[in-house]
Order: sequence, then structure tokens, then C-alpha cells
Amino acid sequence: MNIVIIGGVAAGAKAAAKIKRLLPTASVKVFTDDTHVSYSACGLPYYIQGNFKDYRALLVRSVEEFKKSGIDVFLEHKVTKIDPKAQNVTVSNSFNDFYVPYDRLIIATGARPFIPNIKGVKDYKNIFTLRKIEDGINIREKMLKSKRVVILGSGYIGLELLEAFVHNGLHTTVIERKDTIMPIFDADMSKVIKDNLESIKDRNFDLITGESVVEVQGEGENATKVITSSGREIETDFVVLCAGIKPNVELAGSAGIIIGNSGAIKVNKLMQTSLSNIYACGDCCEEPHIINGQSVWVPLGSTANKEGRCAALNAAGVYTVFEGVLGSSVTKCLNTTISMTGFTEKVAKEYGYTPISVSVYKNDMVSYMPGAGDITLKVVADKITGLILGGQAVGSVGADKRINALASALIGKLTVKEFANNDLTYSPPFSTTIDPLLDAMNLLCAKLGC
Amino acid sequence: MNIVIIGGVAAGAKAAAKIKRLLPTASVKVFTDDTHVSYSACGLPYYIQGNFKDYRALLVRSVEEFKKSGIDVFLEHKVTKIDPKAQNVTVSNSFNDFYVPYDRLIIATGARPFIPNIKGVKDYKNIFTLRKIEDGINIREKMLKSKRVVILGSGYIGLELLEAFVHNGLHTTVIERKDTIMPIFDADMSKVIKDNLESIKDRNFDLITGESVVEVQGEGENATKVITSSGREIETDFVVLCAGIKPNVELAGSAGIIIGNSGAIKVNKLMQTSLSNIYACGDCCEEPHIINGQSVWVPLGSTANKEGRCAALNAAGVYTVFEGVLGSSVTKCLNTTISMTGFTEKVAKEYGYTPISVSVYKNDMVSYMPGAGDITLKVVADKITGLILGGQAVGSVGADKRINALASALIGKLTVKEFANNDLTYSPPFSTTIDPLLDAMNLLCAKLGC
Repeated sequence: MNIVIIGGVAAGAKAAAKIKRLLPTASVKVFTDDTHVSYSACGLPYYIQGNFKDYRALLVRSVEEFKKSGIDVFLEHKVTKIDPKAQNVTVSNSFNDFYVPYDRLIIATGARPFIPNIKGVKDYKNIFTLRKIEDGINIREKMLKSKRVVILGSGYIGLELLEAFVHNGLHTTVIERKDTIMPIFDADMSKVIKDNLESIKDRNFDLITGESVVEVQGEGENATKVITSSGREIETDFVVLCAGIKPNVELAGSAGIIIGNSGAIKVNKLMQTSLSNIYACGDCCEEPHIINGQSVWVPLGSTANKEGRCAALNAAGVYTVFEGVLGSSVTKCLNTTISMTGFTEKVAKEYGYTPISVSVYKNDMVSYMPGAGDITLKVVADKITGLILGGQAVGSVGADKRINALASALIGKLTVKEFANNDLTYSPPFSTTIDPLLDAMNLLCAKLGC
Repeated sequence: MNIVIIGGVAAGAKAAAKIKRLLPTASVKVFTDDTHVSYSACGLPYYIQGNFKDYRALLVRSVEEFKKSGIDVFLEHKVTKIDPKAQNVTVSNSFNDFYVPYDRLIIATGARPFIPNIKGVKDYKNIFTLRKIEDGINIREKMLKSKRVVILGSGYIGLELLEAFVHNGLHTTVIERKDTIMPIFDADMSKVIKDNLESIKDRNFDLITGESVVEVQGEGENATKVITSSGREIETDFVVLCAGIKPNVELAGSAGIIIGNSGAIKVNKLMQTSLSNIYACGDCCEEPHIINGQSVWVPLGSTANKEGRCAALNAAGVYTVFEGVLGSSVTKCLNTTISMTGFTEKVAKEYGYTPISVSVYKNDMVSYMPGAGDITLKVVADKITGLILGGQAVGSVGADKRINALASALIGKLTVKEFANNDLTYSPPFSTTIDPLLDAMNLLCAKLGC
């Protein structure tokens, strides 16, 4: 049995390890055009920040370790073609092209940074994106020699880099073309994030929203200035593009594999693509949303791991269902924890719900405790059924705890009234006597008349 | 309409405030034998520790503030009798006894420390219990003048005081007569708590288990020595008894109100006692366990608040159900967060379940992050139905997050398999790629064959 896996960061590496354990006698080959395999890309902002000195801390499993398990990993080997009829792939390295046959193929080609169409954006050496190990190394090296930086985009990676750069003493400007930072959140919560960040005293950064970058100007090989749609000119030592990512689906698409409406590879709950014996997992594929079963594309490391495992199990003949995602996520930026699960009010409306919501602003622990922070918690529910649809929390580190309690509630399809009975833990260093989540549910109950 | 409330710490104070808002024209009177009303007793160990200087930070609402809302609070007024036929209570203060009529009576008499039957335990002035504001003040004053202390009992309060005393430089000895500290936990988890605490370098405390105190000896007014069942003699400057609490039910019992098997006042889900127009709430009454509906006595501040609210609503004629508790709790002691929800394996067996369990020991965030701690997480499930029954977590502060996610799962009556689909938040400062909870569920799934 020949197993071929394309890509080896999170989903591909997990799939390779799992299927080899399930089918010890199978040949398992991983081809990746990357220079590294099996690493924590999510940790790159923390490497750049200097939380640890050696980037190799990010490497989960080396080529040699894979080899010991009987898995052959081929770095800098690009798969250029899938031939579903011949059941082989064409692999290209710096010397030649060759065919590799497969009985089961697992596509884990991941995603790549989206490069916005801006004048000059491809003309300079000091314009970076962050996706791979080398990107992290290059950005850190540049950062250590720089005093100013501009980040385009204010999503998760943009804000994680903002923290990294500010901690390293750089004046940092984040430019977000939408009207709010972290635009995946509801606008009111995005405002809380921005207000929180801007409340930092003597802050060494600017958050610019509602302006796009129209041109990057430079001298020689280096960009030196960013010009925005309002005519603002910002001098900088380097630029990082954090304008989102795009799934790598071209290889799959060329082979006739169906691409979903989200733009990522369509799979069923067994992680099977539209072609037999071909599976996909990780950032290159869609997944069902657990709340309403709709296909979504939520490319995250934790999901990639689960999908890699599920694809391997099914490819090995062990029937296993991946139920999907809730869109749960968390990050921190300087003084602010930012976390969400389920649908925002905005997305709930798009899906045809009649959402209602409440926001609670409260201490995260009793106010007499030193270090008590605060949380703004927004909970969204469906007016018709009373079901909880999602939550967003911003503030102290305890924001994340509340979102995880909501994630379980979404799995259980709990109504607001049911959750209002929750017995959450309480003691002064951990919560208020009535947890912000219960305040939110009581307020929602009042609105719903339940 | 005359509303009389007996007791005013958490449940009584909450009930008073709530019912006055619901029935603005009613007369609301609170009688308490305490010297303070409406305070956070859970915060007393943190006051003793010195987390804040003024004990008044613990006071939620003063007598004057109640007065402004039209509520009369009578401090140091003990209710000595309830006459359900005459619908009045007998109140005793330092001057006289008098009758107060009621249309609705709410009993929130709380609990009192259990005093173990030990030779000499009542003979000295420097033997303390911790329940009321004065207790906290007295213990703090004594602590500041002392170098050594012995704590009897290693439950929540015992361990919170251990932290307080150690932070203040006292050599502290905790004596637990059971074989494990925090005996409410399963023995394997109690061992993790003990090992965690004893791993502290140059620690200035001892944890003695499986020995009871047989005698307290002293000189004049002061205890100076504690003698254990093994003959150990421990010299000390003072002693704190943390051997549990007992519900104050004698007043209710004398009035013919039914006391439940747990020893606390029996109430229905509307917080009504067995006598009409008499409600009970807080530490003096039982509550149903949400998992199996059995009556339990889990006296905690968060529950007292909810029950006080529910009793007030029903006493005011607004039908409101209190669904009960999960036994969720959390505390911290020095380097260790200790949290649980639902049934332990031990309790699950007592209730007739066939529990299975797994324990996961794992980093609480990815290992390359500075400050990554670890968590030991035990999840208990029912072998027959696959339902999650409870969880216990010990270790870093993130232990509490996992327990709250489990609490929601218990409300949703999730099976292990359903929870294994959970989309918990992930990023390096907050979790491992696969959260410990999901590892636990995957291991349980393997055991259950699901």
C-alpha cells in the first residue's frame, strides 16, 4: 500500500504519523516544497517576539524522526500534478521530475499569504509575509535592526506581530482597510479591542482603520514609505503584509477535485475529496460548521491537526467522522485577550437567523483582588429558538475561559435558559460571584422572556 | 406584605435586595446575629494573606445602603424561634425579645464551622475558625505576631490559609486526618495536589495526612502544642480549625421544617421548605445535583447568590426554578490551581454508576512558551451510557478553564464522543494544539469503544 501525503506542516505531518501507526507495513511518503516539516507555524510570532531564542523549538518532529518511524519526508519537493486515473503524482525537485504512485493520497497543501494588489508591493526586499519558518527568521532579523515597521492588516497575525514589534521597541503602525480592527469580530467588539489597546499609556504604536495602502515607495531594494488612501505618508524600515491567506487548491483543482464555495477543497465528513482515494485536510480544505452544517473555511492549527488525524484514519479504512468547527479562536495582543466561538451577530444574520445579543462589561474576578482585570463579553442567541449561537470576549486572560465554556455549550446545542443554570466555578482569584457568562444569560433570558 | 429574612451574608442579602425590587411596597426586614451584613466570606483568606489592606473591601452593601433601598437590616439580632402558625419570628437582641410577623419568611442562616471533638480544643484563645469578618481580622492580627501555625483540615479553606500563612513567612503545618489532602477529590488527584505543593523548593510548610489531632496543649490562655494520633508533637503559636462546616438548621428544625438526609434544610426547586410561605437558601439548605437530581449539600458562595435570587423571586410570586448544582469549585494554593465539577469517580460509584476515567498530564500551553505550566486532568465518564460525569484538574491556572468547559458539557449532558468534537480555542499562549480535554476524551473514546 502506497500512501502519499502532499504537505507536511500540521495536517500533513499528523496524517503521516497517524497512518503509519495504523498501517505499519504501508509505504508513507510526504512531499513538501517547504524547507521544514512538522512545525508550529502559530508559534512564529512568539519566536519573532523573542519568547524563546532558537526557532527549532517550533519543530515538532524532524525528518530523521519521521525516518525512524518508517516515514519518508522529502523537503523542497514540489508536487506539480496529481493524475487520479494513473493514481500517481508528479514530483519536482531541483534536479528532475518523477512520478510517485499512490493507493491513497492525502492533500495537505495548506494556504499562502494573500498579497494585496498595491503599487510597489512586490518591488522591495523588506516587504514580508509570515507563514513559514524562514519568514519568521527573516522578520526577526530585520526587526532587530529596525526602529519602525508598518503592518498591513489587523487580524490575528497582524496583532500578534504588533505585540512582538512593540515589545522589541519598534514604533509600529497597523493599517486596516476595513473600518474596524479584527474585522472577524462584530464591530462593537472590534471597538472594544481597539479601545483596550489604545488605552495603553505611552504606547508606541498606531492603529489606523478605514484606510487602505495605495502605494509602497522605496529606494533601491528597500521600501521606505507607505502611502494610504487618505494621503497619509508613513516612513518605515520594513513592511509586513498580514492581509489574510488563500488556500492552496490549484494542484487539487487541476486534478478535477471539486473546490467548494469558500474557495477551499470540498470534503465530506470523512475528509474525502470528490475523487476516490484522495483525502484533504488542514488549511487547504473546507469543514462543516457544527452549528448549522454549512461549509466554512476556518484555517487554524488545532483544526488542521484533527483533520489530519481524521483523514489518516479514513484513508486507513477506519471509519471516523470529523464533525466540524465552531470557529473558536483566541489570541492576545499586549494587554488584551481576544477570543470567540460560534457565530458573531453579523454572521448569524447572514445565515438567516434572527440574532439577539447582550454585552456584559465586568471584572474578571472580584474587584478586591489585586490584578483584577475586566472582560467585555458578548453573547449572541437566536431569538426564535433561544439557542446560543456564539460569543466574543475581550479583555483579561479570563476572556478565553468564558469562550471555552461557550464552545461546550454550542456542542450541546444549549439554549440561553439552559446555560443560565450552569454551575461555573467561583472563588475570588478566578471569577466574580456571578460569572459574566451568567449575567449575560440572565440578560438574554430577560430579552427572550424565558 | 411583611417579608422577613433570617441571615444576611450572601443568600440573605441577595434575597433582600431582589425581593425589595420585585415588591417595592413590601416591608423587608433582615435579622442577623452577625456584626456585618452582605459580605464576601470567600475573600477572607485573601484579606488574611494581605492581598488588600482594608477588610471593608469585602463588604458588598452596608446597612445604610440597604436602608436607602428601603430594607431594614438588624445586626446582632438573633432569631430564636419561628412560629409557622402565628406566622411570626421571635427576635432577640441584647436588650429584649420581640415578635416580628411575616407573610413570607426566607431562611438564610448559613453554616458554622465544625468543631472536632479534640481534647483541649475549646480551652485556648488562640484556636480560631474562619467564617465571619471578625474571624478574619483576628486571624490576621494573630498571624502578624506569629512564626508558626497549625491548620487542622486540608479542604478549600485549609489550603487557602496555608497560602496566606506561607506568604506571610509563617512555618505552617497542615494536619489532615484522612489519608489524602483535599479529600473531596479522588485519591489519585489529591496525590497530585500534594506532590505539586511539596515540589516547592525550600518550602516552609508540612502536609501531614492520615493522622488526627488527639490533643491540644497550652499554657494559660494559649495553645502551644498539638499532639497527633501518631504521637507527633508540633509546637505552634496558634491553631486554625478548618475541619468543615455544618448547616445552621436548628431554628428551622424546631419549627417543624423538614431537614434533608444531607443534614441541611430540604427545599424544592422553588427554594420552598416543607412549610408554606417559608423559603430557604444558601449554605443552610440542600440543592439538587444537576446530573442525577439527588439532593446534595454543596455550600458555596456562588450557589448562595443564585438561591437567594430564586427564593426572592418565588416568594414574590414570580415562578422561578433553581435547577441545582454540579459541585463546581476552584481554588488556588501557592503554585497550584485546584478545580473540579460533577462527580468524582468515588462519588459516581456511590451513586451506582459504572465510572471509567482517564488522566492526562500535559503542558497547559505549547512547551516553547515561557511560563508554560502543566495540568493533570482527570475526566470521569459512565461506561454504560458514555455520558461525561465530571472532571478534576490540578496544576497551572489553566486548570480552571478546562473545568468550566466541562461544566457546560455536564449541563448539556454530553457524551464523551460528543465532547471529542469540541472546537476549543487554541493559540500558543493559551493551549496545546490538542487541548488536554480533547486528549482525555480521545482516550476515553478508546476505552469506551466509541
